[in-house]
Amino acid sequence: MPTYRIDLAYDGSSFHGYAKQPSVRTVQGTLETALFPHTGTVDTFVAGRTDKGVHASGQVVSFVAGPIDVERVLRSLNRQIGPEIAVTGLREVAEGFHARFSATGRAYRYDINNRPVHDPFRSSFEWTYADALDESAMDTACASLVGEHDFAAFCRKQENRPTVRHVEWCRWHRQGDRVELAIGASSFCHQMVRSIVAVSVEVGRGRLDPADVEVILDSQDRNRGRGAAPPHGLTLVAVSYGEALVRPSWMVETS
Amino acid sequence: MPTYRIDLAYDGSSFHGYAKQPSVRTVQGTLETALFPHTGTVDTFVAGRTDKGVHASGQVVSFVAGPIDVERVLRSLNRQIGPEIAVTGLREVAEGFHARFSATGRAYRYDINNRPVHDPFRSSFEWTYADALDESAMDTACASLVGEHDFAAFCRKQENRPTVRHVEWCRWHRQGDRVELAIGASSFCHQMVRSIVAVSVEVGRGRLDPADVEVILDSQDRNRGRGAAPPHGLTLVAVSYGEALVRPSWMVETS
Repeated sequence: MPTYRIDLAYDGSSFHGYAKQPSVRTVQGTLETALFPHTGTVDTFVAGRTDKGVHASGQVVSFVAGPIDVERVLRSLNRQIGPEIAVTGLREVAEGFHARFSATGRAYRYDINNRPVHDPFRSSFEWTYADALDESAMDTACASLVGEHDFAAFCRKQENRPTVRHVEWCRWHRQGDRVELAIGASSFCHQMVRSIVAVSVEVGRGRLDPADVEVILDSQDRNRGRGAAPPHGLTLVAVSYGEALVRPSWMVETS
Repeated sequence: MPTYRIDLAYDGSSFHGYAKQPSVRTVQGTLETALFPHTGTVDTFVAGRTDKGVHASGQVVSFVAGPIDVERVLRSLNRQIGPEIAVTGLREVAEGFHARFSATGRAYRYDINNRPVHDPFRSSFEWTYADALDESAMDTACASLVGEHDFAAFCRKQENRPTVRHVEWCRWHRQGDRVELAIGASSFCHQMVRSIVAVSVEVGRGRLDPADVEVILDSQDRNRGRGAAPPHGLTLVAVSYGEALVRPSWMVETS
């Protein structure tokens, strides 16, 4: 049977996360229900399982099913599942492609609106944070996270799951009132980006020194972290399969 | 008693419009409830009454009340009414200032996403329109609306309300897949912008000639129009009081 790849984007606000769960609305549940008329019961696999409230602009899903008319199914999916989810692509791919296990890189973005008052047009997609943040201290602090490390201090503990990850880049950037984290890695452990944001914000407001971040990392102790920033500022922006992960333009220009 | 001016922005998606109504959630009702602890029962006046689903980034409200601590009330309002509404300013103004009757200009924007698939991050703020639109034909068509005209063909009829208006500018602009209308006038009659959008889109997809718009305008006949575009693409962006209305940067650069 052919293997298919779906590219999709979603506003995670009204879902109980990506992964299917009984009797609550999830992205995976919504997607598989919409696929059902075309494929029958189908198991889908996702590149980056996002938590409740987290968004994706470049999520990837794969599944194996009997031959389908991809153009027709693509239109049908979008008719059924909008406007919170948009299927931006559906195509047949080589046998053996697996959205999760074939992925070689994931890139996330975290958005902060560094103002006392939220922006009604963006409030579902950014963390409104009133205290002044020093984004260059945050950027300096995160340099120590790049490379291969045990991120146990930045991960929610899960039995028998290793916490060693390879971070390719981790940069903070300000544009006006907006402060944004861009981070790319082979993969992430649970709550890793939001935990890095929480520690970074403590640096940004002067409660931690940039050098403290390396000390926290080396401790491999979750209790040395600063918990996790709110989910709604987080977006999975890209997944790569062998090719280089796309970096935001501001990073390419300044690095 | 002093007169106060409030500047506010809101995502109109979850409100039954701006104007207070019994037993439904409105922007005015929410605002006056939040003011109540500071002012007691108060009558507020708004520059541009927006319909259900319409947004505002530069709305203005005025009220008269006993002396209040503006900094404290501003913080209190934002604690109470976020995140769909943001009060961006609160200050005492000259006696006699009236948000509606003192206003000399209003500017609106209408956003179209000219793609087959909606964007989950913008779908509450733009009309997703799949058929190809020729924005330069739309821009040409709207030139005939500039100046003083009877806009009866573009207004929902209201007894004893004149439909003569002075439009200062009316321009369409494309940036990638986004097509945007910018329109400025002394004031607007009911559903005027959305009616202009509906007719423009018929021009953009080739069902009307640009020259037909002037014919429709001259007919002063509402039945010659094309109804109204959906409310959620519309945003009140600015109100002026004597000073010139601010135009979008793309208009200043190209005109």
